[in-house]
This record gives sequence, structure tokens and C-alpha cells, in this order.
Amino acid sequence: MAVQTAETPANSTDGTVDLGPATALSCRECGHQVPLGPVFACEECFGPLEIAYDFSAYDTEELRKRIEAGPANIWRYAPLLPVPADVATKPNINPGWTKLVQADNLARELGVTGGLYVKDDSGNPTHSFKDRVVAQAIEAARAFGFTTLSCSSTGNLAGAVGAAAARAGFRSCVFIPHDLEQGKVVMAAVYGGELVGIEGNYDDVNRFCSELIGDPAGEGWGFVNVNLRPYYAEGSKTLAYEICEQLGWRLPDQLVVPIASGSQLTKIDKGLKELIGLGLVEDKPYKIFGAQAEGCSPVSTAFKAGHDVVRPQKPNTIAKSLAIGNPADGPYVLDIARRTGGAVEDVTDEQVVDAIKLLARTEGIFAETAGGVTVGVTKKLIENGVLDPSLTTVVLNTGDGLKTLDAVAGTGLTATIRPNLDSFREAGLA
Amino acid sequence: MAVQTAETPANSTDGTVDLGPATALSCRECGHQVPLGPVFACEECFGPLEIAYDFSAYDTEELRKRIEAGPANIWRYAPLLPVPADVATKPNINPGWTKLVQADNLARELGVTGGLYVKDDSGNPTHSFKDRVVAQAIEAARAFGFTTLSCSSTGNLAGAVGAAAARAGFRSCVFIPHDLEQGKVVMAAVYGGELVGIEGNYDDVNRFCSELIGDPAGEGWGFVNVNLRPYYAEGSKTLAYEICEQLGWRLPDQLVVPIASGSQLTKIDKGLKELIGLGLVEDKPYKIFGAQAEGCSPVSTAFKAGHDVVRPQKPNTIAKSLAIGNPADGPYVLDIARRTGGAVEDVTDEQVVDAIKLLARTEGIFAETAGGVTVGVTKKLIENGVLDPSLTTVVLNTGDGLKTLDAVAGTGLTATIRPNLDSFREAGLA
Repeated sequence: MAVQTAETPANSTDGTVDLGPATALSCRECGHQVPLGPVFACEECFGPLEIAYDFSAYDTEELRKRIEAGPANIWRYAPLLPVPADVATKPNINPGWTKLVQADNLARELGVTGGLYVKDDSGNPTHSFKDRVVAQAIEAARAFGFTTLSCSSTGNLAGAVGAAAARAGFRSCVFIPHDLEQGKVVMAAVYGGELVGIEGNYDDVNRFCSELIGDPAGEGWGFVNVNLRPYYAEGSKTLAYEICEQLGWRLPDQLVVPIASGSQLTKIDKGLKELIGLGLVEDKPYKIFGAQAEGCSPVSTAFKAGHDVVRPQKPNTIAKSLAIGNPADGPYVLDIARRTGGAVEDVTDEQVVDAIKLLARTEGIFAETAGGVTVGVTKKLIENGVLDPSLTTVVLNTGDGLKTLDAVAGTGLTATIRPNLDSFREAGLA
Repeated sequence: MAVQTAETPANSTDGTVDLGPATALSCRECGHQVPLGPVFACEECFGPLEIAYDFSAYDTEELRKRIEAGPANIWRYAPLLPVPADVATKPNINPGWTKLVQADNLARELGVTGGLYVKDDSGNPTHSFKDRVVAQAIEAARAFGFTTLSCSSTGNLAGAVGAAAARAGFRSCVFIPHDLEQGKVVMAAVYGGELVGIEGNYDDVNRFCSELIGDPAGEGWGFVNVNLRPYYAEGSKTLAYEICEQLGWRLPDQLVVPIASGSQLTKIDKGLKELIGLGLVEDKPYKIFGAQAEGCSPVSTAFKAGHDVVRPQKPNTIAKSLAIGNPADGPYVLDIARRTGGAVEDVTDEQVVDAIKLLARTEGIFAETAGGVTVGVTKKLIENGVLDPSLTTVVLNTGDGLKTLDAVAGTGLTATIRPNLDSFREAGLA
């Protein structure tokens, strides 16, 4: 498999690249392996390619010590990621090691007695979990000698790519629908890369990007979620690693994870299995629950109907960062939810807003709509008796409320008073 | 000094409170000492009270190890703060240990050769440095038995108080001008505390709060930046601690710090002096530079004129989080800038916007307008030959660009194209 760029891979002398423990790309469907390169689909069966590793040389306790002595970001897990060993010395946005908040107030409201935690990825550099995956894509782009970083996006990803490219010294060129809200355009444009509006909807943007990858004009371009997707996707494993390490190298019993393409959920499962395999955590069962908004619930619909295939939907929800109507990893999510004894559930937009407010009121965490989806689904699953409140449960918040202010625009002043004590007392505030 | 609340202090059995190494309140002007309590002005001379400590029992290397083994937040410095030793086990928002970004790209643009770092406090829970000071105020409020947390605010502080109160289990009641922009109201209201609009401007809000503190209606209320101010202000010391520890227990040669009330700058100086006194860093000179916006530059005006007093100004700048026209700690800032060989400088709003874009384009950090002020002032000081580019320099970014999107609202699409390669080539993007 030739590297699709005119330049020699930066880290290579003999045509191979140094991506640490990563050894090959392996097809998730048929197992066919190809050398590491900027490809994403199996040449045999068109199945998705993912990273194969060689972890066989690791001693469990040495590895644990090495991780614990590492930096306070995702690169502490460099031995388990497709990155060179010296990754932490390269310019990157260094996301991760976000707070695992012990959510005792929320636990009381929801009746959880076994320990409830919120993994709060709003603490990342551009305030969403996308920084994790983009940071991985940056290192793959570096290894393959790419000089431009690109993606199609409607929000969080555009900012993450713009910021990471700026820090790491790449040119960036991000494609968005031309009629995106001005606030989102500003958040993506401020990093100074090319930001190109496409006359069309998100599907048109995606189609255009696929065309560009196959054209000489796209030579030297790394599309983080297309030709760098196998590397990019691995960034989500770090959520699993961090959760377990922050729990004191313990597996949680239950995790509630949002579903957009489904990639994040599958990689969290992969990360947990790796930790078990490496002996870093005890081998015991865990359940993974997937969370969607009712207005874009192809996976929960399939789960409830007992289907193995996911029928695409036309999204209509305020949870725009999860609004993927035809999720590529939907079938794998169904497998994982069923295999682990979890479930996939959805909540209405009204429940999403209520859950955002509930999390803010109880824990002081202002979540993006995606966080409202996971908290809302957690509440619903407890009420329905599906999620066991006596077990240790981790809920993901993958983004920041400041990016979806419109969702809670109805929130406002409790009272308006004149600047004197009489007016204060009249308002019943004393 | 009696504690001004009806309740017995939570941590107290004999009328004293446990605030760790804090021993008393000491007047910055006349040195008069009073017991720890919710007071802020000297009863002898009306000077500002600040915390006095007893650090005499600490062994340098033991203290260093204790800090390094502490949590990845400000509580690693509990031995140097007015908080009980077990503070990390109490519910709090746990800010701090934000990234010290080695800003090599920005350094190249500015011609800095001695090492340039950005201390990026947008990584705090509500994305501003205010989380540091509010977290301190929370612990003081707990010690004094307060049950309601309050403040006057026009932005960042309201959100920080709302979030921290929610997590820590306090009622909150925050006062803001009634005509604040809707976005800012939402960011403060989402945490579910009382948010009261006052018919008047920020000065009216402040006057009302002072009235409320003296009234029985305000009993049991901790105003973070009024009657809890001595504790609150100490939170800024943690910026100094973190910068030095993150530099490998080294003092930077030069620091560029924004000036609103001036409190943050004075406490950073206090923190650096403490580290020297404790032997945690080498005793060597450092220079502190203050940064203001031209539209609110009472301290830089006084500095340039060689005055010891600061003449109040009516603020008119986009850097609203720094827009304090009559800064309480202005004279102390002048002292520190002169004593350390630093300076106080200001930049225009246009320069603030340019600096926000410069930082985003070079380092992928999207700063609030206050960060544009410090980066802009750094650039100006280098150009004027005041700041030495051959020395190690740390620039503070104290807030997040998502909160002041209006400042860069002019930023937008590079190009708009149709979804095909011809249109892409016509736009000159290939």
C-alpha cells in the first residue's frame, strides 16, 4: 500500500512509519491486513480498517508505572496508541486527562447509590472530545508527510482541527456548509486556517471531500475523519483508559456513552478490553449503554426492535453534534450493547434541555446538548429499571454548553429589582 | 472579631476556624492583625486585610514532595492556602493545574528567544481564572458557616459562583445589571441559583451588595469578592505556584499579567515571594508587567506619568472583564511593577483583536479579550524594547474566547464555493 503523498514519510527511512506499537491496519470485517498508511477501507471487502497493535512486550506493572509517570494528557497512554514513543515532545494540542467528577449531588437526585461519575470532556483545549481524536490524526499526518489537515464539519470538529493544526504547524482547510450559524463560523475561523463554505448541506460537503481525496488537488492532505480515520478513531480509547485509571485502575460497572457515528462507543469498548488484556484492570463484566436524541435515534430504534441493521433517519434534534442519521458504526454499537448486557436508549429534546439544567444545577457542569443526551438517557434508564443504581456508573459529557447556548436560551433572571433592600424584600429573596 | 453569622462555624469548636496555615488577617497598610473572619477592611485604618500564614514548620524538600504528590488542581498547594488540610476531599469545583503552553510559534512571531509560555486558564471548569478565587471563597464560606454564596458580577464571576455553589452544596444569589446581554445571562443562570437583575449599572449593583451585607437580610451570606475577599484573593497565588512548578520549580524572568482590580497581579507577586522564601525556587530577580486596555487604563496612565496614585477612568473597551475604572489594588500594582523593574502598558481594542487572532493562529488558543490584552501588551513591550526577548517570559490568558465571541465577529469564511473541484480550483485553494 503506497502512501498517498508525494513526500517521503517524515519518520521513515525504509518506507515504513514509526507509529509506536501500531503494526498494521486490519479489516474489522474480514481481518485482511495492510501496512500502516492513509487508507480507511479494506481493499478486499470494503470493511472499515482499524489499527492492529503489538503489546506483547509489555510487563503489566512496568507499563502501569510508565503511564502514571507520564504527562497529564493523552500521551501518558502513548504505549497503547498509534504514535511514536517521543510523541509528547512534538507540538500538539495535548488534550485529555480531563476531570472524572464524582457526581454525588446528581447521584442523590437520580437515586444512584453505587457511585456516579461524570467524565467531563469540556475541559479539553477546544472544549470537546474531538481534541482527542484530532490529536491522533495530527501524529498520523506527521508520520505520512501530509502538510495540510482537513475535514468536513458542522461544528466541534472544525474548531478542533483549526486549533490543533495551528499548534502543530500544519496548514488547515476545513469545509463547512456555507449557511452555518455565525457563532460557529467564528469559533472555527479564529484559528486562521482556510475555512471554506460549501453551497449545499452537510452531505454535499462530505461528498465534495471524498472527491477531493481522489484528486491530485488533495495530494498531501490528511482528512482527519476520512483517510486518517483509523488513527483518528483510536483517540476515543483514551476516554476508557482515563476513566479506569482515575477510578484507581478499576473498571466501572456501567458506562453511558453518546452515539453519533458510534465510533466513540466502539473504541471505548476496545480500550476497556485492552486494559483487561494487559492486566491493568481486573477482568470483570461491564455494561455499555448508548445514548441518542429521539430526533436522531437510528441505533436505539434498531436496538429496541431487535434488529441487526440500522435504518438511516433524517435528523431533527437540538443535539446537532450527535445528528448523524446513518451512523457508520451503528451495527457494531448494537453488538456491543447486546454483548455487554447494556442497551441503547433515546430522549426527547425537552428531556435533553432538562438534563443539561439538572447537571448544571447539581454539579456545576454546563454540558453541550450531547451531555444532556447522556444524562437524560441515564435518568430514563434508571427510571425504567434498565440501569442498576447500585453499581458504579460513568456518564460521558463530550462537549461544552457554551457552544450550544441556544438550547437553554429560555434560562434567565430569577427576579428583577430596584437597587434597594425594600425591593429585595418585596421580591421574596430575603 | 465576631463571625458575622448566626450559625456556629462549621469547622470550629472553640470559636476559631481551621483554615490550615492561615493564622490571622493582617492589614496591608498598618499591619494590624485580627482573627480570621469574614471581614475585609482594617478596623484601625480601613486598609485592605490579607491573610497571614505560619509556614515555619515546613521542610523544603518534604513540602515539594507533598505538593508533587497532590491532586492535579489547586489543592496540591493546600499547605500554602487558607484551607483545611483535607480540602481535596470536600465538594468543590477543583480548578487549576491548567496548561502552561510552550508557545514556540508565537515566540518566533514575536522574536522571543528565551522561551515564551502561555498560562492558559481557559482550561478551568467555567473557563476563566475566576474559578481559582471562587474555590477559595467556598472553603472560607464553609469555615464561617455561611449557607448562601453571592457576588456582584458582569460576567465570568457570576458563572464561576453559580457553578461552584452548585457543586459545593451552597445556595447562590448573584446580582447583575438587569440589561446584561442574553448570552451572559444564560451562562450564569444555567446553574440554577438565584440570578437577580438590578435596575441600574454595575456601580448600582455593587452599592446594593454593600447595603445587603450590613443588613439582617444578608446574614449567612458570603459575598465572594466583598466579605470573603481576603480568602478569595489568595486563589490568584496558585497561578504563581503552578507557573513555577510547571517550569520545573523555576522562576520565570518576566510575567505579563492583566490588570482589572489589580488583585491578581499583587497575589502573583506574593506567591512568587513565598516560593522564594520557602526555598522551593531559587532567589533571583523577576519582572512583573501589567497589561490594560487603552479604554480602561488608569494604572498604565499612572505608571507612565510616574504617579503613585491612580486616577479613576470611565471604562470604554471591549475587554469588559478588565473594565474596572477605579482599581482597588492599583497603587500596589504600581509599586510591584517599579520594584521588580517591570512596567504597565496598554493596547487599543484593535490591537486586542489582532492579538486574539495572533494567539489563535500561532498556538491554537482562543483567548478572551483579556488574553488579547496580555498578548498585545507583550508584543508592544517587545517592540518598544521594554520586555527582553532573550529572557523566559510567561503571558497569562485568564479567560475563554467563547465568552467574548463578539470581539472577533468579523472573522469568517475564507471562500464560498460550489461542491465540486472546478469551483475549488477557481477559488485558488488547490
